[in-house]
Amino acid sequence: MSSDHLFLEHLTWEEVEQARERGVDAVLLPIGSTEQHGPHMPLDTDCFIARSLCARAAEAGEADGVRLLVAPTMNVTLSWYHMQFPGSMRLSTTTFLQVFAELCDSLAHHGFERLIAVNGHGGNMAALTVAVNHYYETRSRRVFLVQWWDLAADLLASIEGPMIHAEEAETSIAMALGHRVYAERATRDAWDRGAAVREAGMPWTSFGKYGMTHKGPGVVVPMDMLRDITPSGVVGDATRASPETGRTIVEAIVPRIVQVAREMAGRA
Amino acid sequence: MSSDHLFLEHLTWEEVEQARERGVDAVLLPIGSTEQHGPHMPLDTDCFIARSLCARAAEAGEADGVRLLVAPTMNVTLSWYHMQFPGSMRLSTTTFLQVFAELCDSLAHHGFERLIAVNGHGGNMAALTVAVNHYYETRSRRVFLVQWWDLAADLLASIEGPMIHAEEAETSIAMALGHRVYAERATRDAWDRGAAVREAGMPWTSFGKYGMTHKGPGVVVPMDMLRDITPSGVVGDATRASPETGRTIVEAIVPRIVQVAREMAGRA
Amino acid sequence: MSSDHLFLEHLTWEEVEQARERGVDAVLLPIGSTEQHGPHMPLDTDCFIARSLCARAAEAGEADGVRLLVAPTMNVTLSWYHMQFPGSMRLSTTTFLQVFAELCDSLAHHGFERLIAVNGHGGNMAALTVAVNHYYETRSRRVFLVQWWDLAADLLASIEGPMIHAEEAETSIAMALGHRVYAERATRDAWDRGAAVREAGMPWTSFGKYGMTHKGPGVVVPMDMLRDITPSGVVGDATRASPETGRTIVEAIVPRIVQVAREMAGRA
Amino acid sequence: MSSDHLFLEHLTWEEVEQARERGVDAVLLPIGSTEQHGPHMPLDTDCFIARSLCARAAEAGEADGVRLLVAPTMNVTLSWYHMQFPGSMRLSTTTFLQVFAELCDSLAHHGFERLIAVNGHGGNMAALTVAVNHYYETRSRRVFLVQWWDLAADLLASIEGPMIHAEEAETSIAMALGHRVYAERATRDAWDRGAAVREAGMPWTSFGKYGMTHKGPGVVVPMDMLRDITPSGVVGDATRASPETGRTIVEAIVPRIVQVAREMAGRA
Amino acid sequence: MSSDHLFLEHLTWEEVEQARERGVDAVLLPIGSTEQHGPHMPLDTDCFIARSLCARAAEAGEADGVRLLVAPTMNVTLSWYHMQFPGSMRLSTTTFLQVFAELCDSLAHHGFERLIAVNGHGGNMAALTVAVNHYYETRSRRVFLVQWWDLAADLLASIEGPMIHAEEAETSIAMALGHRVYAERATRDAWDRGAAVREAGMPWTSFGKYGMTHKGPGVVVPMDMLRDITPSGVVGDATRASPETGRTIVEAIVPRIVQVAREMAGRA
Amino acid sequence: MSSDHLFLEHLTWEEVEQARERGVDAVLLPIGSTEQHGPHMPLDTDCFIARSLCARAAEAGEADGVRLLVAPTMNVTLSWYHMQFPGSMRLSTTTFLQVFAELCDSLAHHGFERLIAVNGHGGNMAALTVAVNHYYETRSRRVFLVQWWDLAADLLASIEGPMIHAEEAETSIAMALGHRVYAERATRDAWDRGAAVREAGMPWTSFGKYGMTHKGPGVVVPMDMLRDITPSGVVGDATRASPETGRTIVEAIVPRIVQVAREMAGRA
Repeated sequence: MSSDHLFLEHLTWEEVEQARERGVDAVLLPIGSTEQHGPHMPLDTDCFIARSLCARAAEAGEADGVRLLVAPTMNVTLSWYHMQFPGSMRLSTTTFLQVFAELCDSLAHHGFERLIAVNGHGGNMAALTVAVNHYYETRSRRVFLVQWWDLAADLLASIEGPMIHAEEAETSIAMALGHRVYAERATRDAWDRGAAVREAGMPWTSFGKYGMTHKGPGVVVPMDMLRDITPSGVVGDATRASPETGRTIVEAIVPRIVQVAREMAGRA
Repeated sequence: MSSDHLFLEHLTWEEVEQARERGVDAVLLPIGSTEQHGPHMPLDTDCFIARSLCARAAEAGEADGVRLLVAPTMNVTLSWYHMQFPGSMRLSTTTFLQVFAELCDSLAHHGFERLIAVNGHGGNMAALTVAVNHYYETRSRRVFLVQWWDLAADLLASIEGPMIHAEEAETSIAMALGHRVYAERATRDAWDRGAAVREAGMPWTSFGKYGMTHKGPGVVVPMDMLRDITPSGVVGDATRASPETGRTIVEAIVPRIVQVAREMAGRA
Repeated sequence: MSSDHLFLEHLTWEEVEQARERGVDAVLLPIGSTEQHGPHMPLDTDCFIARSLCARAAEAGEADGVRLLVAPTMNVTLSWYHMQFPGSMRLSTTTFLQVFAELCDSLAHHGFERLIAVNGHGGNMAALTVAVNHYYETRSRRVFLVQWWDLAADLLASIEGPMIHAEEAETSIAMALGHRVYAERATRDAWDRGAAVREAGMPWTSFGKYGMTHKGPGVVVPMDMLRDITPSGVVGDATRASPETGRTIVEAIVPRIVQVAREMAGRA
Repeated sequence: MSSDHLFLEHLTWEEVEQARERGVDAVLLPIGSTEQHGPHMPLDTDCFIARSLCARAAEAGEADGVRLLVAPTMNVTLSWYHMQFPGSMRLSTTTFLQVFAELCDSLAHHGFERLIAVNGHGGNMAALTVAVNHYYETRSRRVFLVQWWDLAADLLASIEGPMIHAEEAETSIAMALGHRVYAERATRDAWDRGAAVREAGMPWTSFGKYGMTHKGPGVVVPMDMLRDITPSGVVGDATRASPETGRTIVEAIVPRIVQVAREMAGRA
Repeated sequence: MSSDHLFLEHLTWEEVEQARERGVDAVLLPIGSTEQHGPHMPLDTDCFIARSLCARAAEAGEADGVRLLVAPTMNVTLSWYHMQFPGSMRLSTTTFLQVFAELCDSLAHHGFERLIAVNGHGGNMAALTVAVNHYYETRSRRVFLVQWWDLAADLLASIEGPMIHAEEAETSIAMALGHRVYAERATRDAWDRGAAVREAGMPWTSFGKYGMTHKGPGVVVPMDMLRDITPSGVVGDATRASPETGRTIVEAIVPRIVQVAREMAGRA
Repeated sequence: MSSDHLFLEHLTWEEVEQARERGVDAVLLPIGSTEQHGPHMPLDTDCFIARSLCARAAEAGEADGVRLLVAPTMNVTLSWYHMQFPGSMRLSTTTFLQVFAELCDSLAHHGFERLIAVNGHGGNMAALTVAVNHYYETRSRRVFLVQWWDLAADLLASIEGPMIHAEEAETSIAMALGHRVYAERATRDAWDRGAAVREAGMPWTSFGKYGMTHKGPGVVVPMDMLRDITPSGVVGDATRASPETGRTIVEAIVPRIVQVAREMAGRA
C-alpha cells in the first residue's frame, strides 16, 4: 500500500536509518490480542483495531508534519479469561510484561526514545499501566499508553450499557476501520453483568467495577472467566453497533493520537 | 484495645481456630506504603489509613453481624517515584506481586477464601489490579480490591484540584482517622501538574491522566519522579484539608466496606 | 482472501470450534523475526517467508485431505546479532523460550495437540531445538520443527557459498513467495566469513561452523555481531538470487510440510 | 510515645533528612513473623520481640550518644513449618530473600549504609545468614545480623531443655518486654524432640541439631512440620517462663546491640 | 599423575597465578553427564570421554607449545530423556544454562578469556549452542564449543547406523580412552529408530532428524524418552565397537582441539 | 578400585537397578568447592575431603551392613569470597540452591528417598541449611546435612585458633585422607580475624561470629573478601596441622556418618 513506508517492518534497515535521520517524532507500538470476539468478529479483532488506528494516525501525522512509524504488533497478550472459547491464546502476565519491555528496549536501542503503546485489548490495561511505570522506573524512559476507550471517553459517555467486550462500541469501531464483521451474527449478552455473575454463583459486590465506563463508588474485582457469564462471548449489546458510531469515534481518536505524539516530541 | 480480637496477629492460633469455627465473612488485608507524605505527614500515612479503615470496618461489621478479621499490613510497597525523598522505601514490582500472592495463599491455606485487599497507596493501584486478576487466573480464587478513592468516588467528586498525593482528600482522611498530622506544615504544590511536568522539561501530553479523578479523554502516562515536580512532596493542596471533610469520607466508606464483605459472603 | 479460513486468527471462535469438530491434523506455528535483511529486503522477511510457507502448505493440504490451521506469527525473536542495524528488534533467549511454550500451551488447551513450528530465522534454530525438547520434557507433548534449509537440504546442496543471511537462497525464496524484494539493491558480502572474522580481529578457528551447510569437521562458534563483518548486512551473495531458484525450493518444501503433518497425525 | 522519633516510619521526610544530617550510626531492621506461638502467645510474638528490642536499643543508644533509627518491621517471613496451625502466614524462601535485599537497598539509597537486622524468628536464621552474605557479595555492603539467642548465648546456657519455639526463654523475653502473654495457658510439649520425631515415624538421627543451643557432634536436619510433633505448638517448656528471666536477658542484650552499632560505626 | 599440572583444580592458587603469568592459550571446560550408557558402560561415560579428550589435548598442546588448562567437569547435565533408566541424573535446561554461564564467568574473572567447552553428551548440543551465543550476546566474550562428533565428522561418515547413544562410535572412543567398558555386555537396539518410534505409538515423521549424521531433508523432532524405544538404553549397535575404531577417531580429534586453541589465541 | 561399586557414576544402569533391588540405606551426596586453599593445598581440597569421607563411610557401611552409594560430587559452589585468588570458581546462591534441589530430585526419582549431603565447604553451610529446609517444605522429603566440623565438634573443641579456612583442622584432615598437601608451604595468617578486619578498615563488631567454633555471645556477619585480610588465603594456622590430628578426626567421623545413615533408614 501507499502507507507501507510507515510500518517499520516493511522497511529495509537503510530506510529505517534514513527515516531516523529525517527525524521520527514517535514510534507507535500496536498491542492487540488473539481471543474470541463473539460470534460476529474474528480472533484478531484487537490486533486489527490497534494496528489500524496506528496506521491512520501515522497517515494523518504525515499529512500534518508529525513523523510516525508503526512497530510490529504484539498479537498474543493477556487473554486468560477468554480461554474457555476455542482459539483464544494467552501469555502469562510475567511474560507479557517482559516482552513489552524488550520491544521497547529494542526500539530505544536504535534511538527511538519516544514510544506510544496503542492498546486495543481491555484486559491489558492494568498490566500495561504497570509496564509503563516499571519501564520508567528501571530505564528512565517514559512510554505513553493510548487506548481508544480512554482517548474517546467523552464520546463513549453517550453509549449505553456495559463497555466490556465485543459490544456496541468495539464492534462499531471495527466496522468503521473495515474489519471483517459478520453483523448478522451480532448478539447481546450479559447486559447486566452483576446479575450474570450472581446467577453463576460467584462472589460479587454491587460496587464491582467491570467496564471501562463505571461511574460512582467502585471496587476492583478480577475479570470473570467469561464463558461463566456469557454463552456468546459478547458482554454488552453488539446489535446496536453501526459503522457511523464507529466513524465518529475513529475520527475523534486519530487526530488525538497525532496530538499526543506532537506534544511528546515537544512540538506542541 | 477492645478491638484487638479483630486483628489476626493479635490472636493465638487457638483463637484463630475458634474464630474460623464461628465463621469469618472475610479477611481484610491492609496495604500501605512507607514513603514521603509531604512536610505534614509521616512516612507511614498509607499504612495508617489502610489499617484504620480496616479496623473501623471490622468494628462496624461486628456491630452489624458481619464477621471480619484484619490481617497484618503490607508496609513497604511500590514507592519508586518517591525515592528522591529521604526515608521512602520500595519493593520492586515483581517482588510486590509475589508477596501479595503469598499473603493471600497463606490466608487461603487456613480456609479464609474471601479476601478483601484494602489499599491506601495510589501507586499500588494498577499492580494490585493485575494482582487480583493474576490470582484468580492462577488460583481460581477472587480477591476484591477496595481503595478509598474508588469507594468514595461520589464524595470526592466535589473536591477541587488534583487528587494525587498528600493533598486535601488524603490529609483530611488522615486527620479524621486520628493520624499524626502537622497541619501547620501543610502546603500546596504542583497544583497544575501538567505545567510542572513541562517546566521540568519532561515529555508530556495534555491528555495525560495522573490523578484519580481524571475526566474526559485521557492517556496513561507513567508517574513522575515526584521531586522533579514538587519540592515539598505534596501534589495538590493540603492546606484545604480538614477533619470534617475526612469524617464525611470515612463515614461513607466504612459501611461500604462492610457491605462489600456481606455481599462477597453471599449474605446480602 | 479465499484462504482466510486457514488462519486461526481470521476465524471466529465458533468457526474454530467447527474446524476442531471436523478435525485438524496439525496447527502450523510460523516463527519469523524483525531484523535487517540487507539493503534489498525489509525487516519482516523471515515473518513473510514462514507465514507464506504455512499458508501454501495449508492450501496444499486442503487440496490433499490434510487439514491444517495457521496460528499467529511470532514476529520478534532472537535477533541480537543484528542489533547494530537500525530497526532490528529482539527478545532475550529466556523470554523467547517462554513465549514459545505459552503459545504451544494455548493451542494445546483447545485440543490442538499436534503442533508444527515453521521457523524462518536461522538465529532461532538452536533455541527452538531446545524449546521443543524442553516442551516434550515438561508437557509430554511433541512439537515438530520445520525449517526450509533443513527440509530442502537436498536442493540447497547445489547452492554455492555461505548459506547464512539474506543471500542467494533466502532471497530467492522471498522472491518466489512474492515478497517485496528490491533486486537492484542486492549485494554480496562476507562471502568468506572466516576471512571477515579474522579481519575484524575476533577469535576464530578454521573449523568454525557458521552456515547451515557446513561440511566436514566443525566447531560451534557463536554468531558474530554482523556489522563487524558485513557492511551491508548480507552474508553471502544475494545477486545470484532468482525467482526460479526460489520456486524450485518452495515447490519442494510445501508438499513436504504437508507430508510431515500427515505423518504426525498418523495418517501416512 | 516519646520514642516516636526513633521509628523511621513515624517521621516526615524532612525529619528523616534532618536525622541524616545530624548523623545516624545505624538503622535497625526488625524481622519478625506471623505464626503460632503456642496457646499462650499471639501470632505477632516475633514481630513484637524484634521491634521492642530495637526500640529499647534505640532509646538506650540515644542516652548513650549512639544514634539509631528503627525501620518498619518485616512481619511475614519463613514460617512454613507452622502452617498446620491456623493463622500462621509465610513467604517463600526466594521471596523472603528478595524482600530483605530490597529493604536494605531502600535504606542504603538514602545513605544509610550501616544496617543491623534484628531477627526474632529462629526459622529465619539460616536464610538471613545467606542473605547478609549474598548482600555483601552483590552490593559490597555489610549488614550485621543480631538475634537474641546469639547475643545472649552466655545467659541462655543456663536454661534447660530445647530452645526452639514458644518455650521458656522466648516466653520470658516476651513477658519482660510487655507482650500479651496468657501465662495461665502456657504448656510443655516435645521436650524430647528426638523422641517426638521418632514417634511421628519420621526419619531422624541422634545427632540431629534442632535447637539453638545444641552441644556436641551434630547433623543439620530440616525443621519438622511442627504439628507432627507438638499438639500445642510449644517446643520446650513454657511453664518455666518468668518476667525475671526475661528481664535478665533483655537487660543484657540491649546494651550489646548498642555496642554492635557503635563498633559498626567505628566509634568503639 | 604427570599431567596433574594441567588440571586447574589440582593446582594451588599460586600455581594458577604462575600459569597465568606464563600465559594460557585457552582453558578447556569438559562437559559430561551422569546417565545410562547401555548395559556395557557406566553412568559417567560422557564425563570420562570429555575429560580424557581435554587431558590428551592439554598434553599434546604442551608438547607443541600450546598452553592449555583443564577446568573441573560439569558432571550432571541435560539427561531428562534417560530418566527412565536407574541412576540417570539431570539438570533442568534453565539451570544448566545458568551453571554454564557462571562457570565461564568464574574463569573469565581470573583473566581466562579464551574458553573452549568440550562436550561429550549429545543431549547438551543445542543448549550449549544457545549458551555460547547467549554468552557472547551478554558478555561480549566468545566461547567455542567442541564436540567429538562434530570435530571428527569426516571420520564418522564411514560408520554405518544411527550415531546416537552408546553405540559403535561412542563405545569405540570410550575403549580407546581406557574407560571401563564391558564389551561382552554390548548390544544393539533401535537400529531403525523411526520404526521403533512408530512401534511405540508416538508421532513421527519420515524426515525426523535424530542422529548426529542425518543426511538429506530433515525435521527437528524432540528426543524420545529412550526406554520407550530401547530396552537396553543403546541406540545403534555397540557390538561393532572396537578400540581401533576409537583410536582412529581420538588421534584425529586431539590435534584438532589443539589447533582450535592455537587459532583462538591468534597464534595460527 | 575395589570400592568402585560404591560410586553411583561408576555403575551401569543395570547395576544401579540391582543395588536398588538389594536395598540402599542412603545415598551420600558429596559437596565440595573449587577455591583457593592457601599455598599448601590445591583448589579441589573440599571436593577431595567430601568425596573421601563419603567413600570411607560407604566402605565402613559395607563392612557393617549399611548399604550406601556415593553420588557425583558438586564441584563448584559458593566461593564468592575467594574470587580474589586465582582459580577460584563460584556459583551464585540462587543457582547453587537450584542445582542442589535438582540433584536430590534426580536421585529421589529413582526411589532413593534417603539422601545425606556431605558438605566439605564452610561457605555452603547456611545455604545448605536453607536448602534442606526448602526441600522438605516443597517436596516433603528430608535430606540430612553432614559436615565434618559439626560431626566432630567434640574433637575439634581442643583445637586452638580460628577454624575457618585451610588451617590446622582442615589441613590435618586433608593429610589424613591422602590429599596432595605441600606441608612445607603451610603458613599462618589472620589468626586474629577481628584485628585483620579492623586493619583492613571494614565495619566490624567484637561479637562477630566468623569461625565454626565461636563461643559466647555472637552476631552473624558476612564473610570477608578473604584477600582483604589474608595474603596467603589461610585463615588460622596451617603449620600446626598433622596427619595424626586428621586421623583422629576422620576415624571419629566415618562411623558417625554410617550411624546417621543407619538411623535414617530406621535400622538403629
